[in-house]
Order: sequence, then structure tokens, then C-alpha cells
Amino acid sequence: MPSRLSLPCDMRALHALCRDLPPPDMVADAAIARHDSQLTKPPGSLGQLESLARWAGRWQRTDRPRAERVDIIVFAGNHGVTAQGVTPWPSDVTRQMVMNFRNGGAAINQIARVASARLRVVEVMDLRPTADFTQAPAMDEASFLHAVTTGMQAVRPGTDLLCLGEMGIGNTTPAAAMAAALFGGGGDRWAGRGTGLDEDGVRHKAQVIDRALARHAAALTDPLAIARHVGGHELAAMMGATIAARHLGIPVLVDGYICTAAVAPLYLLNPQGLAHTWLAHCSAEGGHADLARELGMRPLLDLDLRLGEGSGAGLAIPLVRAAIGCLCGMATFAQAGVGGGE
Amino acid sequence: MPSRLSLPCDMRALHALCRDLPPPDMVADAAIARHDSQLTKPPGSLGQLESLARWAGRWQRTDRPRAERVDIIVFAGNHGVTAQGVTPWPSDVTRQMVMNFRNGGAAINQIARVASARLRVVEVMDLRPTADFTQAPAMDEASFLHAVTTGMQAVRPGTDLLCLGEMGIGNTTPAAAMAAALFGGGGDRWAGRGTGLDEDGVRHKAQVIDRALARHAAALTDPLAIARHVGGHELAAMMGATIAARHLGIPVLVDGYICTAAVAPLYLLNPQGLAHTWLAHCSAEGGHADLARELGMRPLLDLDLRLGEGSGAGLAIPLVRAAIGCLCGMATFAQAGVGGGE
Repeated sequence: MPSRLSLPCDMRALHALCRDLPPPDMVADAAIARHDSQLTKPPGSLGQLESLARWAGRWQRTDRPRAERVDIIVFAGNHGVTAQGVTPWPSDVTRQMVMNFRNGGAAINQIARVASARLRVVEVMDLRPTADFTQAPAMDEASFLHAVTTGMQAVRPGTDLLCLGEMGIGNTTPAAAMAAALFGGGGDRWAGRGTGLDEDGVRHKAQVIDRALARHAAALTDPLAIARHVGGHELAAMMGATIAARHLGIPVLVDGYICTAAVAPLYLLNPQGLAHTWLAHCSAEGGHADLARELGMRPLLDLDLRLGEGSGAGLAIPLVRAAIGCLCGMATFAQAGVGGGE
Repeated sequence: MPSRLSLPCDMRALHALCRDLPPPDMVADAAIARHDSQLTKPPGSLGQLESLARWAGRWQRTDRPRAERVDIIVFAGNHGVTAQGVTPWPSDVTRQMVMNFRNGGAAINQIARVASARLRVVEVMDLRPTADFTQAPAMDEASFLHAVTTGMQAVRPGTDLLCLGEMGIGNTTPAAAMAAALFGGGGDRWAGRGTGLDEDGVRHKAQVIDRALARHAAALTDPLAIARHVGGHELAAMMGATIAARHLGIPVLVDGYICTAAVAPLYLLNPQGLAHTWLAHCSAEGGHADLARELGMRPLLDLDLRLGEGSGAGLAIPLVRAAIGCLCGMATFAQAGVGGGE
């Protein structure tokens, strides 16, 4: 694995980084499967934990994966489309919540502590809002590349497991707009209640999305163009972090709806583009289960969360750690003298 | 809460202990709900975590619940019904696995370590098998009461959270027999693959269960009689531990199929009898989802586990800890100055 990663200087270079991806280490994968079959348990009885341990090993490129150095990165951004009244919360709250993260008072601080994970917050583009994408592309190419590379640079080589999170008032709207542009079905299919809309609010949000899609129709020619025109700064950064993690051999836990929408372009650019990620939870936000199905992702947790901040990803850390703990710490049948008194 | 609990000297006293149960602390519950509504997150956005924190508080009888002192107790037992060929594993494996637990080599050891929980193993009735319940009641009254009180005594007052687990070659058969006797439907509805039966094996197991139910039909007059006639030592102990936890104000995480079947009598003896428990996971064992529905339980995790040992309960500990961490550690809107720049 490279310990440093070259940053894309233009859209063409970014495309190449998304398309030319390192494959998994299937030698490590096979070695893990062999070792797992000798551990003191009925074959397959640890279910998804067995799959998680193999996944971690395939992407860390080792038959003894680790989950010691776990990073949760919360990318924060603001959204010009809030001018269209798509959220009851003012954009100021994004910066206030960033302060809350720094002071240890948010949900993700407590979840990170329980999971013994390092939490960092990255203010993408210094929290300057994107353009209102009903009026103009959310980002020009330079801003988009800047947001993507901010995400890439936030990933530390040597991390064992990366958890993505976000904070950005209004960001279920770009998430839904991206899902609609990537998978079809319009605003109705993808707009949900976010942090507190009523039915009229959801209907309005769907209409805002449909207007944006109509305005940019001619420009939405590929997944990265979609991310630039109707996405957001923190969404672009999460995609960048996911690209960097792939090239650095770091498995990634994807959080809720916004995070899933943010990384979805990678799947459409390369069918294996999200193979190093695992969906941590299924959000209570309407479109998330549907989006997960489109991406062929099965969530680890389903706890009615709809907070963001990386909360679902953080909650899944102990599952990965337990999976790896079982693989690396369990006795074999021979070591334990288990197996019917032979 | 009593710091010691009187042990039942006969079936009548046990019945009383199961029926006359302390109610939850609804004052603590309401205080938690009030505090939760002021925390820096959209109302309800932590989903099941909010419910978990209230549940822990209701039963610990405090508006600031804790999850520091967490016990996982694995109850081990052997089963006379293995003489009927209901499992491919010899009963010796129960004792071998107990040694494996003591040496730190089993899955639950790794899971307990990741969860910072104390793991204890209790050999119920010194691993002497129950009677083959196709021939006689699994336990006489004295043995049954002894197994139940073994479970009760294993619970330490002052525990914040108790996780139940089991090890017992053949014990999916008494679990299925209990489920069938308690909820109807016969062996077909409740017998599953256990740790490795094929289709013929499952069919045979269902027939063994049906024979046992027919034999004891006249005696299966109440839930405790069912637990005694077609249950098992470690199942009775898990029920005992759950009774003790209720009287001592300790919330309980219920593990998979066997554990759920073991505590099911408490629900039928008192509709609130399992209110202080939460089902940790949905087992891949056939009848478990069905049994959970009968008991009105929604599992926290669904990861295709079918191992037992308390593995599912142990994996859920960090969720309870995160839930309590959020309740007790998050800033309020007022403290954080979050809320739209007022």
C-alpha cells in the first residue's frame, strides 16, 4: 500500500482514481477462511462477524486484521439550497454543532468514547455554503476538487478502520438529489423528513429536488458531475475519504443516508468501488433502505437512528472489533482439545 | 432494592417470586425522557438508543443509569435427550468448552474483552445430565429448584447490566420443546438445525420433541412445569438469574434461541415478567424470530449468529453503554448554545 496518495489535480485525474482501484487481497482472505474453520465453534455460527473479519483482512491485506487505530471523521458543510426552505434549522447550527463536537457534548463524542475511537471534525471549505443548486451548480470544478481532496487528506495512513460521519444543516436534500440523479425516481422517491419536516415539508423538498434535477439535466452526465452539481462540500469530502481509504488499504464503515448517497458515485464508476466499505446501519430516513438496496449493501445495525454525525458507524465499531477479536483470539479445536474426546 | 434475595424453597415459593414482581421506576423514566428532550439532537433521532437508556434507568431505578459493572454469565449444562440422537456433537464437548471458556479461547471470551465485561461460567448441577425427557421428566422438583436457585445466586447485587449465555450440547432440543409446550405448534414449528443437523436430523428432532410432549401432556399444566419436564439445567438457571435480576433491579440482555426459550415462562406467568429484559439478537436458528414475536421482543442485532455462549448479548453491551453514554454525557441545547443563534 502507498503511504501517500497523489491528489487529483483535475476531474480527469479524479475519474482515474475512482476507476483504477486496488483489488482485495484474496490470499489473506483465503488464509482467514482456513483459520476460521479451525476455531472452536460450529462452522458459520458467528455469521456476519466471520464476514466482517474476512472483509477487514482482505482490505488491510493481512490474515491478522486489526481494529486498534479507529478514526471517526465528521465532515461538516453548509448548503445554499437551505434558501429554499428545505429544513426547519438555520445554517448557523452547523457551526454550533461543530463547536459541540469540539467540546465533547454531541452524541458522536459519547459513541466514540465507548468505542475507543479517535474523533476528528473537518470543516469543509470553512463552512462556506455551496451555491443554491436550484439556481446554479452546487460547486464549480475547483471547489468540488478542493472538497474531495480535503476528504482524501483527512485520512491517515496506518488507520485500521475508518468511520465516516457528517454534519450539515440541510444535507438530506443534496443526498436525496444525488440519489435521484444516480438511480432515478425523482424527489418523491428520495426525499424524507430529515431532522423534522412534516408532510408538506417533505413534498416541498421533493419539488425543490425535481427543480434542481430539471435545471441541471444536461450536465448530469456522469456520477462525478452529479456529485458536483447537486451534492455538497461534506458529501464530496466523504467520497474523497472513501477513495483515499481504498488506495491506502483501509476498510470503511459507511454511516447513514447522507454518507451512503455521498459515496454512491464510486459504485457507479466501478462496480467494485465500494467493496472496501460496509454499511454500518440502516437509517430511519425514508430513502436509505432503498438506496442501500440499489448499492447491494446490507446494514449491520437497524436501530431507528436518524442523527448522522457518524453515529451509526461509531456504534458498529465494537462489532468489527469483536469479529477481529474472535478471528485472532479464539483457540482452535486442536489447541483447546475440543471435538468429542478424541 | 433488596441486596439479598430469598431463595424459593418449593415450587409454590418460586411461583410467587415469578408473579409478584417489582414494577419499573416510572419517575426515573419520566426524568430521563425530560432530560433527553433537551439534548443536542433532533427529538427521537437516536431511535432505539433512547429507548435503551430509559429501559436501563427504569429498572436500575435512577435517572442516571450506568453500564460499568457488566456481567456475562454462561450457564453450562448437559442433556439426557442427547441419547435420542438430536445432535452430532458428543456431550463431552460441554465440559471441553467450559475449559475453553476458562482458558480464554472461546468466542465469548473475545466478545467480553471487547465489551469490557466480566465473564463467568457456571456449571449447573456439575454438568450431570438431565433425564432423557422422552422417558421421564427432565428434572424432578428438587433438581429443578436447585438449578433455578443456582441461577439466582449467580447474580451479583450491584451489577449494572446482566448478559445471559449458555453452553450445553443438545440444548436446542429442550429450548424447542419448551417453546412448543408454551406456545403450541409442535416440534415442526420449533425444531431447527442447531449446531449442524441436516434436514433428516431436524425432522427426527421434531419427532423426538413431539414424543416428549405427548408423554408429559398431562403434567404440562403451567409454565414452570413445562420448564421442569422438557427444559434443562442451564435453561432453568437462566430463568433463575432473570428472576433474581428483576428483584435486584438489574436489566438483562437475553441472548439467542435457548436463552429466550428459557425465560419465556416468566412472560406467561406475568405479562410484565420480561419487561426488564431486552432481546440482544435474532438468532439464525429457525424458531427464534417466531419465539421473539410471541414474546413481543424486538432484537437489537440481527447478524446471523447461531453460536450461543451469550455471544449476541455480549455484542449488544456497547449499544447499551453508548445509549447511556449519550443520555448522561451529551450537552443540552442551552449548555452548547445550539439552536439557531438565539
